[in-house]
Formats: sequence, C-alpha cells, structure tokens
Amino acid sequence: MEDIVREDEATLRSRALDLEGEHVADLVEHLNEHEPEEAPAILAGLSEDRLIEVLDQPEFEASVELISSLPIGRAVRVLAGMSADRATDLLAEIEEPRRSQLIAKLDPETRNAVARLAAYPEGSAGSIMTTEVVSVPANWTVGQTLQHIRVVEKSRETIYTICVLDPVTQALVQTVTLRRLIAAEPNAPVLSAARHRRPITVTPRTDREEVARLFSKYDQIAVPVVDERFHVVGIVTVDDIIDTIFEESTEDVQKFGGMEALDEPYMDISFLMMMRKRAGWLCALFIGEMLTATAMQHFETELEKAIVLTLFIPLIMSSGGNSGSQATSLIIRALALGEVKLRDWWRVALRELPSGLTLGAILGTLGIIRITVWQMLGLYDYGEHWILVAATVGTGLLGIVTFGSMTGSMLPFILQRLGFDPASASAPFVATLVDVTGLVIYFSVALVILSGTLL
Amino acid sequence: MEDIVREDEATLRSRALDLEGEHVADLVEHLNEHEPEEAPAILAGLSEDRLIEVLDQPEFEASVELISSLPIGRAVRVLAGMSADRATDLLAEIEEPRRSQLIAKLDPETRNAVARLAAYPEGSAGSIMTTEVVSVPANWTVGQTLQHIRVVEKSRETIYTICVLDPVTQALVQTVTLRRLIAAEPNAPVLSAARHRRPITVTPRTDREEVARLFSKYDQIAVPVVDERFHVVGIVTVDDIIDTIFEESTEDVQKFGGMEALDEPYMDISFLMMMRKRAGWLCALFIGEMLTATAMQHFETELEKAIVLTLFIPLIMSSGGNSGSQATSLIIRALALGEVKLRDWWRVALRELPSGLTLGAILGTLGIIRITVWQMLGLYDYGEHWILVAATVGTGLLGIVTFGSMTGSMLPFILQRLGFDPASASAPFVATLVDVTGLVIYFSVALVILSGTLL
Repeated sequence: MEDIVREDEATLRSRALDLEGEHVADLVEHLNEHEPEEAPAILAGLSEDRLIEVLDQPEFEASVELISSLPIGRAVRVLAGMSADRATDLLAEIEEPRRSQLIAKLDPETRNAVARLAAYPEGSAGSIMTTEVVSVPANWTVGQTLQHIRVVEKSRETIYTICVLDPVTQALVQTVTLRRLIAAEPNAPVLSAARHRRPITVTPRTDREEVARLFSKYDQIAVPVVDERFHVVGIVTVDDIIDTIFEESTEDVQKFGGMEALDEPYMDISFLMMMRKRAGWLCALFIGEMLTATAMQHFETELEKAIVLTLFIPLIMSSGGNSGSQATSLIIRALALGEVKLRDWWRVALRELPSGLTLGAILGTLGIIRITVWQMLGLYDYGEHWILVAATVGTGLLGIVTFGSMTGSMLPFILQRLGFDPASASAPFVATLVDVTGLVIYFSVALVILSGTLL
Repeated sequence: MEDIVREDEATLRSRALDLEGEHVADLVEHLNEHEPEEAPAILAGLSEDRLIEVLDQPEFEASVELISSLPIGRAVRVLAGMSADRATDLLAEIEEPRRSQLIAKLDPETRNAVARLAAYPEGSAGSIMTTEVVSVPANWTVGQTLQHIRVVEKSRETIYTICVLDPVTQALVQTVTLRRLIAAEPNAPVLSAARHRRPITVTPRTDREEVARLFSKYDQIAVPVVDERFHVVGIVTVDDIIDTIFEESTEDVQKFGGMEALDEPYMDISFLMMMRKRAGWLCALFIGEMLTATAMQHFETELEKAIVLTLFIPLIMSSGGNSGSQATSLIIRALALGEVKLRDWWRVALRELPSGLTLGAILGTLGIIRITVWQMLGLYDYGEHWILVAATVGTGLLGIVTFGSMTGSMLPFILQRLGFDPASASAPFVATLVDVTGLVIYFSVALVILSGTLL
C-alpha cells in the first residue's frame, strides 16, 4: 500500500516536471487528451514563457479556456509575447466583452499587428503570416546585422531570412539568409551576402496554396509579404506552410470523396456538424441521380421487351463512373500542383480522348468475353440474339468509358472557370454526371443494334 | 531589319546572362520546356558552381543527359559538389558502364555516402536524407562551433541544425539550432545553447510520411537521422519534406481516384505508361463489378414480375457508393495524419453506424417523397402497389447507405491490417464492393415487402 502511494507521488512529481521540460508539442498532445476546462488547472503555476510556448501551438485545443482563466494583466502579457499570427487567431475565438478588454490593454504595436492580421481573408498569405520580421537598412554591414539579430532573436518568429530595406523609402531591396550572413565578412556591406536576384515575395492576398508552391519551387524557409509599394508587412514561415499543405490536401481528399471539408479532426468533430458536412452533398447527388430513374422510365418499353439489358446496367454505369473518377483525380492534382493551367484544357482533352477510347475498348472486350464465355459454358442463357447483346454491351462500354474520361477530365476545368474550387469535382459528382448520360448512351446503342430483333 | 537583328542579339545576350543570374528554380523551369537532348548545348559554358546548383534541383528533367555530356573529370567534380542525396538519385538513373566509371573516380567520402544512401528503400527517411551534416563535439564552445560552421557552410545542405556529439562515443547528445547559437554567449559551452530535451530524431528506415508528421508536429527545419547506436548517418531537411508531402498527397488523390499513382506530371507521362497505371485497376474493378450481373441474373424472376424495381437500381446503388466514398475519404486522411490509429477501428465503427443510419434515413425519405409526388401528380404510374414500392425503395436506401458508410470506413483499416496502403481504398473500389451487396440488400427488402403483391 505504501509502495503504491510512493509510486504515485513519483509519477506526480515527474508529471509536474514534464510540464516545463517536455517538448511543447508533446505537452500539447497530452493536454488535448483532457477536457478543455481542465487545462487551466493543469497549467496553473506554469512559467509565463512556457505558457506563451503552449499557446503558440495552433494544435492546442484549450487556448480560449486557458487565456480566459488568466488575470487580465497576465493574459495581455502572454498575448503580447505570442507570435502575432497566433494571437490574432486566438483573439478571434474569445467572446465579447473579454476580447475588447484584452485588445484595449495590449501595447500599441501588438494591437496594430493584430488589427492588420485580422483583416486578411482566410486562406490568404496575410492570414498565415506573422508580423515579427527581422529587417535592417541596406547601408548596414554584415556585422551590424548579426549584432541586431542577436538582440531581437527572442521576439522574432524567424531569423533565418532577413529583409534588407532601402534606408530612405523603407522598401524591400533584398532578402539575406542567416546562413550566408554567418559565412560573410563582418565588415562587408550586408547586401554583399545577398544573391543578386530579385527576392521571392508574396502579397498579403496571395492564396496560401500558391505560397506553398513558391516555397516548394524555390526551397525557401521564409518568404516576406510585401504591399504594393514593396513595404514588408509580414513574413510567412515554413512551419505554417507545412501545416497549410497538410490541411489543403486533407480538404482535397475529403472534397474528392464527395463531402464538404471537415476543418476538424475526424474524432473531434460533433455528430451534428459531421451530418451537415456530409448530408448536403449526399442529397444533392441523390437528387441529380434521380434523373437515372427518369431516364429508365423513358426506356421502360425497351426494358420490358429485353430484360436481359437490365442485367448489365450496374456494370456499365460503374465503369463510366470509374474512368471518370480516374480522370478527375489526375486533373485535380495537376491543377493543384500548377502542372496544368486553365488554358491547357484542350491539351488535356486531346490526351483523354485516346485514353478513354483505349480503356473503353479494353473493358468492352472484357464485357464481350464475359457474355460469350457464360453463354458457351451454359452458365446463363442470354437468348438467341446473345451475340447482338454482347455487341450492345461492348459498344456501350466503349462509348461510356470514353464519355466518362472526357467528363471527368473537363469538369475540374469547368468548375475552375466558373470560379469554384476544381477539387469540388468529386468522384461521386462525376459518377452521377456519367450515370445519367451513360444510361442514355447504353439504351441508344441498344436501339440501334437490337432494333428488329429484341427491340 | 537591322533593328530586328539588334533586338535578337540583345535578347540572346540577356538570355545568356539569365543562365547565371536567374533563380535556379526559374532556370530549371525554363530548361524543362526544351527537349532533354538540348540541355547540354544550352548550358555549355555554365560555371561549375552553377551547374551543381542546377543539378541539385530534383525538378530538372535533363540531368542524365547533362551529366553524360560532360568530360568525366568535370562530371565527377560536379557529382562531388552536389548534395549527396541528389547525386545518389542521379547516379541511379545513369546507364552502365558510365555509372561504374563515374563511381570509381569519385573521392572516397562521396563514394561511401552514395553507396550508403542507395541502399535505403524508397520512401524511407534514408532515401530523402543527405549525409552533409554539421556536427561538433560536446566539449566545444559556442564560438568554436560558429567558427566551424563558417568554414564548412558551403559544403553542407543545412547549417540551421547542428548535431552535438559525445566526444568519445560520437553518439548524438543534442541538436542545437543556429538561431540559439547566434544569440548565445561565445565562450559558453555549445550545449548551453541546447534545450534540455531529447533531440527529435528518426532512423534511416522511418517512413517518410512519418518524418513529415514529425516536422509538422515539432516545427523542425531539419531532423538528424541516427542508427541504432545513435550515430548520426544523415539529416532530413524541410525542403525535401515539403516535396514529400506534395508527392504523397498527389499519390493519395490518384489512388483514391482508383488508379496507380503516376510518379510523373500528367503532361509528361507517356501514353503507354498512363494506360498501364489506369487499365489495371479499371479492369480489376470491372471484373469485381461483374458480380452485379450475376446478382441481377439471380433475381431475374423478380425483375420480370416487377419491372418497376429496376427503375431505382442506379439511384440506390449510387447512393451506397457515395456514402461509402465519403466515409473512406474521411478515414484515409485521418489515418494519414495519424489522427486515428489501427486500434481505433471500433471507435470509428461506433461513429459511422449512427452516421450511416441518419444519412440513410434522410435519403430514404427523399426517395419516398419522390415516388409519392410523381404518383400524386400523375407524372408516372408506379402501379396499384406504389406505396409498397416506395417503402421498398426507402428501406433499401436506409440499408444500403448504412452499409456503404460501414464498408467505406472499415475498408482502409482492413487494408492497413493486411499490410496494404489504406489509401488504396479508392472511391471506385468502395463503390464496387457496395454495388454488389447493395443489389442483394435491395432485392431482399423487396422480397419481404412485396411478397404476395408484386412478387
């Protein structure tokens, strides 16, 4: 009994130690396993620096509860110590009147930064940048710059990319990396450490996906954000870009699966929210798919005369949907990576037409073989005109798979042209489009081939 | 006429300038627009440093042609100057006997690095790491370390993360960031600039997706790769991680679309390769989907008695596929992000069962409304038992959508458990699974509800 007590105490002590000593990401993971309401109690007595570190993690789920539990003076100090982009996001979640109270007590510099950051639209470079930039005038030396970096290091999100400004206009002249500064001659001018190329920059309204592509293309660790007069308003750092890429690809996969993007981890989202994200598209697709029933009703006479045709409806429809889904996934990614632009639609069409015809011919042949083998082996009797039935199925597949590839590849372009996200061209969306038309193609082929025999 | 000539000369001269002056990523983009065979001629006369920069870009498509065109001495110097991971990838693409000739002439250090890197499996941390690490013994001071960094800067892929080694065993003790070194007291021991936490490391066999998650979680710029004795064998840098995340999400979307991942940009891949990547899965799905024809044959008697049932087959089947596709996309991403682990399958099942029932009830109600409205308005006559037909469709939808959600959410777990990539659970794969069972559910419901009336 005494042993157990002693062990518990030891565990408790080691836990208390962990709060300060553990990697902040691990601490946050641990905290997220508790209810948000428990966080203030667990973190009571944490040092202010550590509190700032915890709240700087976008993954931390109890930040609102934690900041609300602090005395207002401490809360303001913590907010000022946080990176400006995180402080802005956090303040946006705090309810009134507390939010206004906190903002009123912030130092003017932080308050301005927060006000500016809050104004940028979601998904823009402005919304993921931070305002804590290291910048020096172009007439400084390498040594002066390094000395300045040493002084401001603690208060800047990144010091690996330094903005060199025109001493008069304050406009961005160049960016210098810390790596080249370190290796440069201390008495040389700071610009001697810069590469003589235009600096990579973005504007506050650049889409964050576009920013991510720039990071990937130019292997950057941080990219300054400049306004129209080339004044530096902030900097985007690579850690935010990694989070962006993860989030964007999750959104793309979920949209491609035929639903709205969740915005939250699967296990955390509420049942009601989940239903809202899924039911909308599911109902829209269902209503679109109702046209298949209308199409079928239209061909009811043919169906009654040749029940054998119905046997292959699911097979044919799904083949069109599958080929469309393949083509869509290809084009969505090619557009997202910038491999293909809107104006390239006709190049894509010229590639997908032969692709669709080839794939359709392969599946059509498989379909004909299936019917022939079953008929020959006596597994099923497709009637005296079984050869014509096989021809109908084969020709139908050729047409539907080609149509599926074309529809699937063109839909993302059409959506982008209309101003929608091309990733909304989901597999179910394409399948629904192809299903209705596929039925019409199938029955039209049947009317031509079977007219005078079965129909 | 003279003007045109003069302009052309100017353009040519400015182009010649661009070769050295442009951002290397832009130069590579420009080169990639030419045929690979033209690259050696365009780049003739390029400085060796610049040549190394160009070849260090994984995006450059003519690297084999370029290195093969160089005199062997120059080729070897260029390879030695490249980052070891890129040199390894490039050597792997060069054909024999040239490859062996080049390897034989490399300096021993580069040769060893290349041999070691080539041995790591694709998709592992070892395959994306580089061997050019900055490491210092733990008994050095901050000042000594900074001086060392200045000397080796040019030959290291990253200098932002420094490995501090045990002076005796050479095992990794800590990592220090350049940022904290810069701000530290020059005479203090190097370890004083380290945070007193275990360093974030991976092993050469860690999956690169797992490495990417670590970068994201701990906001790292570089992560050392250590062997079982904690000796540093390389380092993974954030630019390779960004490329990894882009590639992995492209693969995931393409697989989810029901095809093999392309490995190459859409516009660059050959027609034959494209057919191979697409036809395999399309045929497999087609053969699976043939079971629908078998199921339909099984219910042929019922079909003949109640043609009205066939009208709703496409609608019902697609609803099952769509709900399955939603559930699959959710679980694939949750698994990829580590939000959900294999052992959580039952938690997911407990969430998807009520989700599926709710969504099924919504669609079932819509289906019943559709039939009722059409019947009432006289748009179509579903016969005297139309109420029973509506009940069959509604109940069928409830069952199939629930089954679709369950199948779609469990399939990625099953695939992962069997050692496959859960992302292979594509929308078409799920739809095929659900289609066959969906038909059986629909006809079974019909047999129960319509027995004695229509059937």
